[in-house]
This record gives sequence, structure tokens and C-alpha cells, in this order.
Amino acid sequence: MGFDRLIEKIKETGNPSVVGLDPKLDYVPDFLRKDYEAEDGLSLRAASRAIFAFNKAIIDEICDIVPAIKPQAAYYEMYGYHGLKVLQKTIRYAKLKGMFVITDGKRNDIGATMQAYTAAHLGTVMVGENELEPFGADALTVNGYLGSNGIDPLLKVCRERDKGIFVLVKTSNPSSGELQDQLMDGVPLYARMGDLCEKWGADTVGEYGYSAVGAVVGATYPAQLAELRERLPHTFFLVPGYGAQGGGAEGVAAAFDKNGLGGIVNSSRAVMCAYQKEGCDPREFAAAARREVIRMRDDITAYVHMN
Amino acid sequence: MGFDRLIEKIKETGNPSVVGLDPKLDYVPDFLRKDYEAEDGLSLRAASRAIFAFNKAIIDEICDIVPAIKPQAAYYEMYGYHGLKVLQKTIRYAKLKGMFVITDGKRNDIGATMQAYTAAHLGTVMVGENELEPFGADALTVNGYLGSNGIDPLLKVCRERDKGIFVLVKTSNPSSGELQDQLMDGVPLYARMGDLCEKWGADTVGEYGYSAVGAVVGATYPAQLAELRERLPHTFFLVPGYGAQGGGAEGVAAAFDKNGLGGIVNSSRAVMCAYQKEGCDPREFAAAARREVIRMRDDITAYVHMN
Repeated sequence: MGFDRLIEKIKETGNPSVVGLDPKLDYVPDFLRKDYEAEDGLSLRAASRAIFAFNKAIIDEICDIVPAIKPQAAYYEMYGYHGLKVLQKTIRYAKLKGMFVITDGKRNDIGATMQAYTAAHLGTVMVGENELEPFGADALTVNGYLGSNGIDPLLKVCRERDKGIFVLVKTSNPSSGELQDQLMDGVPLYARMGDLCEKWGADTVGEYGYSAVGAVVGATYPAQLAELRERLPHTFFLVPGYGAQGGGAEGVAAAFDKNGLGGIVNSSRAVMCAYQKEGCDPREFAAAARREVIRMRDDITAYVHMN
Repeated sequence: MGFDRLIEKIKETGNPSVVGLDPKLDYVPDFLRKDYEAEDGLSLRAASRAIFAFNKAIIDEICDIVPAIKPQAAYYEMYGYHGLKVLQKTIRYAKLKGMFVITDGKRNDIGATMQAYTAAHLGTVMVGENELEPFGADALTVNGYLGSNGIDPLLKVCRERDKGIFVLVKTSNPSSGELQDQLMDGVPLYARMGDLCEKWGADTVGEYGYSAVGAVVGATYPAQLAELRERLPHTFFLVPGYGAQGGGAEGVAAAFDKNGLGGIVNSSRAVMCAYQKEGCDPREFAAAARREVIRMRDDITAYVHMN
């Protein structure tokens, strides 16, 4: 219940971070691409197969020291349905290796349509008497602009299948304030959205005090991170924007409670492209990813102490 | 430029409506499902193939009298990557038959990730020197909660490839007011979002006065529809909520300008399930869809007069 499963993995690994698997084809070393391109030509299928090989090698290398991965749906959709097949395979493989999987899809809709997204990403679908799992992630990022009608369909599956969601609250980008910071009766929109997360999650609070309705709060706004940690005591935070976007470990520490829990920090490109930054042999891309994961873990846990 | 291509098709057909292709497997008549289920079992693949046959028959039957279709991504994702293959095939088939295609995905993200969604749904992707089109819709619905960083990546492809977007402004659901109606300096959030649409679209205004940045405004809120039509003179409206959700043709008329242009009204389930409502032979599902499309066109054009 709540985010207990994720929190237990964080405690096991002593690492409150998640690796974003946002694999642009440019990130995949040539040596991995060329076999698939020889077989399938310069096609979306070849690109997708190379991306899966890349993901798989990284998962193999990091699964013992990272609690979770966060595949970003956009980078799979970009390669058409072949890419979506790789999203499914990546999710299944990471779960097989014991990782918690957050699909970053920022999905949103209402009623029956939101039920369809829920079934797609967190639930199951019936075909005749067969119950099938289309993508099967553990959690999904969602956008709450449509209000409760967009969130309610998710809550049922959170309860029944022990899943979670992360609602966009205060995003990490420079223009997030255009709407999110505007005041409504003296309260910024992001805080109103945060208050709704507390409400939506109220009956799914788990053992560690956090509900199944988490929030996305950017590392690039440490003051708001601290303010929201205080305001939303039952809301688990997914924190993007560390590293590449400029958020530092010291600021990120504000996402955590007094037990060093309550949040997970994402890094994507810095891990996937660690081999480029290191300038090492591209054949060592997965080992370089592991080195970057360890560097990040140590950077964050210098400020975040788990009890 | 702008929504000229769509507006021309609306004028040609004399029909400012769009058919939402949101095909749950339950909507597909048994006679169509059974061949695929015999070949592929009760699988996501069989379900997806049956759905494509269903979509194709409806497109064949309505393409001469309806300007556009709007496939809802959720109902394809629900059947996994097989479903996404059918989304791609449905888009291609409708375009081949001369229709304008709006993918209803309500996508949202920032920077490079939003570029990936843009490439996926409206643009192209490079694999080596090969330029490939993953899904290839004409327009995409998007969610603007993240501000300009989420919209800017779309504008380039709108200009370069003559595509369009629809930003969620005032949605048709009962709880849309929880956030969208709240006042910011005396102006509701939905109107602020609408003002941003005018700004984002400013340099893509086409021959008919509408930009490539449209807005989603629900038929269920006719007063807001009228208010926004006045406030957003260059913003083309996609209007869901007609029929099933309770929006009537008279209220919907408020979406249109003095020339009877400026909006397109969606109907999904009433068209797809017309055969069930009529109680006709399920083998006539496509003919029943055509009859419903004509009924809807006549209902709307009784209130909306195109010059």
C-alpha cells in the first residue's frame, strides 16, 4: 500500500534515486546499433531493438544498487509501435531483475478514457476471459489539470494492485511558473495541486506514512521542495531536475523527511551518457553508467541520512 | 498554415464535426472479432486486429461526409504495442482516404522530451540518414500545465510541416472546475490558459484567421464556450462533450464565429455504437455509424451556418 514497495527497495539499496531510461538513439553506441541495422536496415525496428539492448545492459549493471527505473514514454513513442514494444520489454525485464518501474507518461484524461490509460500502464485488460497486462509498470506519472475525474480511475487500481501515481505539482522547467506559481486566493496553483494529492491519496497511506498518490516536484526549485515537504506530509516525491537541469544534492535534500524518506531523485542522461562524459571505450557504457549511479548515490546520501 | 487544411475539409463536407475513434473491444461486433480470435487466440494482437477492421470499415463509410477523425491514444495503448500498431495503421488509412487526423493524446512534457513526443505524433525521426514518420497525425491534443517549455517544441513542427495542436483549456468533465475555474487575479485559470494559446499561436495564423494552436473547450459549458470564442479570436476550438456527456447543438453553436467557422465538434461513442443504439444487425455497424454522423451533422448545422 502507498509507496511501501518502493520505499523498501530504497532502504535495501540505501539509495533514494531512480534512473531515467530516456534512450534517444544517439545515446546508443555504434557497436550496438550496427548489428540490428545490418539485419533490419535503417528502420524504426532496428532502432528499437538497439535501444532494448542498451537498456538491458544498463539494467543488468545497476539493478543491485538502484531501486527503480523511470522509462520516459516519449522516447519509446518516438520509434513508433516498435518503440512501444521495447517499452513493454524494458518494464518486464527491470521487474524481473527486482526493480520498481515508474512509467513517465504524464497521462491525463477523464472517466472511461482515463480507465483505459490506467489499464494500459498499471492494470489489465480483458480479451474474452483472458486477463492480460499491456505494459505493467508499478507507477505512472500523471497530469491533474482535469481534476478528480482524471485521477479517480487510477485510485481503484492503486488500491487493488498495489500501484502508485505521481501527479505533476511543481515541474523543474524554467517556465513552470507561468501557470503553476500563479496565486489562487493567495495560494499558488502548485500548492493547490499538492493539496489535491493529499486528498486523493487519503485512504491509501502505507506503513511509512506515504499514500499511493505521489507528486512530481523539481529539484530546480529547492525552496518550493521544502515548502511542499512540509505542506504534504503523506505525499511521496519524485524529483526530476538533478544534475543536467541544475538541481544540486543539497537542495534535493529538502524533498526528504526526518527519516531520510519521502522522495526519490531522478537522473537520466547523466547515467545513460556517462560513457560519453568519461570518454571511455563505448563498449564500457554500462559500467560507466554504474559508476555514475554510485557517484550520484554518494552525492545525495551525503545530505540525506536514512534511519 | 494554422488550421487551414482542416477548415477547407470542413467547408468541403459542410460538416464541422469529427468522429472520435475510441474503440473499446466491447464496441466491436462479435462477428468481426471471431476470425482474429480463432487465428491469434484471446490475445492483445487479436483484439487489436479486430479493432483495426472495425475502424477501417467505419472510415470507409464516413470519409466522404466527415472531415476528420480523432483517435484517442488511451484506447490503443490499452492493447499494448499491438494497439499502437493499429493507431498508426488507422491514422495512415484515414489520411489515405483524405481525412484530417487529430491524435487525442493530451501529451505534455518539456524540452527534449516534448520534442520526442512531437517527433512521434506529428514529425519525423532520423535513423541514420533515413527520415521516418512514426505515427504521422495532422494534429495532437496537449496539456499546457508545464507552460511554454512544453509548447515551444511543438510550434516548430507546426510551422515546418503544417501541423496543429489543441491545448486543453476548459475540459468537458464535471470536475474541470476544481482547478480550471479558480481565479488568478480575477481571471479563471482556463482563460489564462486560453490567453497563452493566443500568444503561442501568434505567428501561425492562417488564411481563415486561426492559428495552429487550437484549444479544447467542452460542449458541456456553453457559457464558457461563448466567452472564450470572444476572448480568443485566433484560436480554433475542438469541442468534446456533445451528445453522451450532455452538450447540445444549440450550446455548441457558441464555439463558432460569424462565418460558421472556428470550431469542430467531436462525437465518439454515439457513432461507434450507433448499431447498438439502433438495435440493427451488427453487420451493419458501419452503415449505422454513417446514419449517426448525418444525424449529428444536421443537428449541428441547424444552428451553425457556414458562409
